[in-house]
Amino acid sequence: MASPDPSLLSLNTATVSKQWTLAQMIEGCARHGIRGIAPWRDKLAEMGVTEAARAIKANGLTVTGVCRGGFFTAKDWLDDNRRAIEEAHALGAHCLVLVVGGLPGGSKDLIRARERVKECISMVLPEARKAGVRLAIEPLHPMQAAERACINTLEQALDICDALGDGIGVAVDVYHVWWDPKLEQQIRRAGKKRIFAYHLCDWLVPTRDLLNDRGMMGDGVIDLPRIRSWVEAAGYAGMHEVEIFSERDWWRRDPDEVLRTCKERFATVT
Amino acid sequence: MASPDPSLLSLNTATVSKQWTLAQMIEGCARHGIRGIAPWRDKLAEMGVTEAARAIKANGLTVTGVCRGGFFTAKDWLDDNRRAIEEAHALGAHCLVLVVGGLPGGSKDLIRARERVKECISMVLPEARKAGVRLAIEPLHPMQAAERACINTLEQALDICDALGDGIGVAVDVYHVWWDPKLEQQIRRAGKKRIFAYHLCDWLVPTRDLLNDRGMMGDGVIDLPRIRSWVEAAGYAGMHEVEIFSERDWWRRDPDEVLRTCKERFATVT
Repeated sequence: MASPDPSLLSLNTATVSKQWTLAQMIEGCARHGIRGIAPWRDKLAEMGVTEAARAIKANGLTVTGVCRGGFFTAKDWLDDNRRAIEEAHALGAHCLVLVVGGLPGGSKDLIRARERVKECISMVLPEARKAGVRLAIEPLHPMQAAERACINTLEQALDICDALGDGIGVAVDVYHVWWDPKLEQQIRRAGKKRIFAYHLCDWLVPTRDLLNDRGMMGDGVIDLPRIRSWVEAAGYAGMHEVEIFSERDWWRRDPDEVLRTCKERFATVT
Repeated sequence: MASPDPSLLSLNTATVSKQWTLAQMIEGCARHGIRGIAPWRDKLAEMGVTEAARAIKANGLTVTGVCRGGFFTAKDWLDDNRRAIEEAHALGAHCLVLVVGGLPGGSKDLIRARERVKECISMVLPEARKAGVRLAIEPLHPMQAAERACINTLEQALDICDALGDGIGVAVDVYHVWWDPKLEQQIRRAGKKRIFAYHLCDWLVPTRDLLNDRGMMGDGVIDLPRIRSWVEAAGYAGMHEVEIFSERDWWRRDPDEVLRTCKERFATVT
């Protein structure tokens, strides 16, 4: 199968978050010919949203997403999601990624936690629509159900989308969904209408940490070309965002080397 | 909701595998009034199957399962599964648990790996039926898809069961399935006909290792009474088997303390 169009590569700032400021990341993308960026909000706050928007525009980058809204388990979730929507609007982001939060402290009631996520999204969705910001639910790997997100499959996320209507879709991150027996079926179901983002990295064998041991594309066991073929067949024509949390490896490397490797692997193994 | 019948507690030998021989485990169960046991085959091999069967019978224990068959990725999988069936037969075990294996070395083809599992089970199933040994597919947590089992949801396991007919069912281990949005639905679908075993432990927050950091019932976030209510409502009336892999905690404790704690927690939090 043919390589993806190199101009579709986007950098999620988590990938070099320990090494660079957002200003350096924007310059880095420009220097390496990477045409998209997806900033995390801590980096945005450091730089200031107005200045970040200016620099991103000056360098002609597409903002494939803002990470993240959600965490409906937090006390200030409503204000925080409103601010996230404003920031995504200010950057002209393709979507605001929602990491929905896990079990509220002390609770074991996963069913209630999931109902609450749906209720909370339905409360912020009108404001997101008004701002022209699409909300992308990111189903996280089941191993993160307790701590980070109680939405754990594409099927579950799409059921919520179908219940809530327009302006809500999904971020498909291969790391979180590669194992799912219903992946192809649910990507087809999502279609162009619901797939707002596509995230890349790899699943290492062995994986030594539940959160920060993701691999560079090609270093793990995910069949990336196959999943890409499903996403493309579903009509997704957006960018492919590399997001790697890697305490032991990529966060310790020279960030220019990281970006060069992302580009090379994107062209050869995805 | 009422506590489970104390006589339904069974000990999976993994729980004290670092401390005791199988002979000690059998005596330990008898001493603590635990009425069921599920031996792993390495322990069985050490003791000898004939002697183990004799001691188990002499102590009046029920064998809730033999761990494990499966691992269809191994070179000698067919002979090994035949031996496992013989051992389960010799012990009069309620089932032989199948941990099906992950991706074959070097492969990224999860779809093919899953097809192969179905083919391999269909090859050993006639022999298992002849021996009167029920095969229980144990869906493992998606975080173990690459290394230990490419069957990762109850829905996926039940699809295989439905395709293969009688004598094949599932082992429902709360650790592997607690996160599943379709858990209640699929337990109902499985019913009495397909649920051959029910395994207990807990999901710790944080979980520090993908394999050997399981918690004692009550120490984690799994809503054990709720899952039990679903399993009972589905018609399952068998034993509840405690299986805890715990490098940092329970494998380091006095095994009599472990068994006492299993009994107490079984009565109070499951």
